[in-house]
Amino acid sequence: METELSQRLGIEYPIFGFTPFPAVAAAISQAGGLGVLGAVRYGAADDLARDLDWLDAHTAGRPYGLDVVMPAKKVEGVTVAEIEAMIPEGHRRFVKDTLARHGVPELPVGEQSGWRITGWMEEVARRQLDVAFGHPVKLLANALGSPPPDVIQRAHANGALVAALAGSARHARHHQEAGIDIVVAQGYEAGGHTGEIATMVLTPEVVAAVSPLPVLAAGGIGSGEQVAAGLALGAQGVWLGSIWLTTREAELNSPALTRKLLAAGSGDTVRSRALTGKPARQLRTRWTEAWDDPATPDPLPMPLQGLLVAEAVSRIQTYEVEPLLGTPVGQIVGRLNTERPVRAVFDDLVRGFERAITRVNRIAGREGGRPR
Amino acid sequence: METELSQRLGIEYPIFGFTPFPAVAAAISQAGGLGVLGAVRYGAADDLARDLDWLDAHTAGRPYGLDVVMPAKKVEGVTVAEIEAMIPEGHRRFVKDTLARHGVPELPVGEQSGWRITGWMEEVARRQLDVAFGHPVKLLANALGSPPPDVIQRAHANGALVAALAGSARHARHHQEAGIDIVVAQGYEAGGHTGEIATMVLTPEVVAAVSPLPVLAAGGIGSGEQVAAGLALGAQGVWLGSIWLTTREAELNSPALTRKLLAAGSGDTVRSRALTGKPARQLRTRWTEAWDDPATPDPLPMPLQGLLVAEAVSRIQTYEVEPLLGTPVGQIVGRLNTERPVRAVFDDLVRGFERAITRVNRIAGREGGRPR
Repeated sequence: METELSQRLGIEYPIFGFTPFPAVAAAISQAGGLGVLGAVRYGAADDLARDLDWLDAHTAGRPYGLDVVMPAKKVEGVTVAEIEAMIPEGHRRFVKDTLARHGVPELPVGEQSGWRITGWMEEVARRQLDVAFGHPVKLLANALGSPPPDVIQRAHANGALVAALAGSARHARHHQEAGIDIVVAQGYEAGGHTGEIATMVLTPEVVAAVSPLPVLAAGGIGSGEQVAAGLALGAQGVWLGSIWLTTREAELNSPALTRKLLAAGSGDTVRSRALTGKPARQLRTRWTEAWDDPATPDPLPMPLQGLLVAEAVSRIQTYEVEPLLGTPVGQIVGRLNTERPVRAVFDDLVRGFERAITRVNRIAGREGGRPR
Repeated sequence: METELSQRLGIEYPIFGFTPFPAVAAAISQAGGLGVLGAVRYGAADDLARDLDWLDAHTAGRPYGLDVVMPAKKVEGVTVAEIEAMIPEGHRRFVKDTLARHGVPELPVGEQSGWRITGWMEEVARRQLDVAFGHPVKLLANALGSPPPDVIQRAHANGALVAALAGSARHARHHQEAGIDIVVAQGYEAGGHTGEIATMVLTPEVVAAVSPLPVLAAGGIGSGEQVAAGLALGAQGVWLGSIWLTTREAELNSPALTRKLLAAGSGDTVRSRALTGKPARQLRTRWTEAWDDPATPDPLPMPLQGLLVAEAVSRIQTYEVEPLLGTPVGQIVGRLNTERPVRAVFDDLVRGFERAITRVNRIAGREGGRPR
């Protein structure tokens, strides 16, 4: 299983695994894919430095990547306190009332919000990059627009390719003009921030828009047949996030959330602005329903909504308040039915891909059953 | 290009083309696929009889199908007039005001509504079936739920397979229990009535749910690579509707609508209840925007909404009032960029499929380039 891009990155399979957990990223890279560690949950650069050290020690020299969230539009000279002051009182009251209605306890005195919204600030992302470039990061991905030109330059100087997520052909062309190396075409069915064009339509559209730039298909991919479909659509690789959430190596630290993920079907997600202010696919919960109710306040624009709900999300997670407890996840959540090691999930992707190729070859009337 | 299902139906390619136009259906069947004529626009059974005669004369004995709309829930002993009386006055006023705001003229006196909502009534569908079974229809598809048991029986007795559309694995299992032969897994990105699960996720889910029943992948398929992707997902065939709308053989009879379809991108559709009361993907227009505005009346449930807007849709179409003019169409509308003969579209599907298979074989490190 080899594309030009996988050769360039020196990986065995063009399977890219996004995850907030270092142990998952390491296991993906060890299995022959490219583990991409999400940096948004790291507030302090020291924590990231420690986890990248750990990754270096546990990937046996295999390549891995880092995913930062650097908003395309920079907010100049505004402090977090000033941004917080923009949040309407009615919205604060709605958060408070919703938590009270579900009996969500306060955090213990002195306990910090665990959901580190500060990772969304460019300043924080830049400190993370200072740390990252001291490590052999082979892929730098940005989840919100193209990274600034100096960051792209610095990544290239450090031997890393730069990827950016796009929900439309127009976004993808912007990225290409900005000088990035890889476009991740993120379809409607994907977890997290996502547009309205489904992967089946988006992938070939983005491939056509930015060719010869390599494209990764993202959204709705959690099995080998879906890997085959993504590659048939013209992608040079696939980008999977949700499928790792219930692996043994994942550190959700929430038995209740794991239970919900294992029980959820493909229809149990919703694309909602409740979490960050931009539409992001996540488990449908009483929390998203409360925000999506036309009778309640509309979610605020990014980054206000994230700041507004950060503490609430932290309380919901800390006390595992089931009706409100959610996480960004794609429609393939319907496939998350058992807790398994990353390796088992990865091997299934490869085996399923091979089976799918054999099957389409049979349909096409080709030999093709024979590995070279 | 051959699956068990295509063999069973005696067609060269497992490509199923849904269309409201007999000339398009004939051309699809002649090209080696299976043309499926949509019956909903036929009010009078005589018109359908005439067009099926024409199909028999123009398909050279190749199989074709018929798609009826038979609601799963039967409304017993209620007349159209009684149903019409359930429509609130405020809704009628909103339709009138919206048309007036856009200067839509009245229909000439005596002219009937062209949009034949009556095709949605079981009584009408049954008269259509009486006609259909006098013709060698090889596939009977139902767009709303499973057909009643006696219809399935009659179809089988007449040598036709029965297909039903499903937007979820649960729907698909219902169809299977009802005794149908083929499930069309209709993804979120499809035109017309559709659910929220994207084709990439829905197809393998439905295949797993109803195996060994054959499944057709529908939604987002308009190119050969998308055909390959649909088949890689485990489908035994693909079901395409939107891609034929701008073929030479299509009789939209509206240069303005054709222009809009050719100009639209993949982001220019919306899943809206404005047309029938159930969510259906269509071009985003001032009409859908008016109905989807939270400040205006909510669309009524099916069949009320269809009855409410039938005359309005007819007026908009008759006078080609561009801002309001729309049609059900999927996200692949972004691919409709030229008017071409059905044959050219079909040949592109086949050639694109072959290219995609060659490409994935190269990725998989298999020979596979060699046709058998």
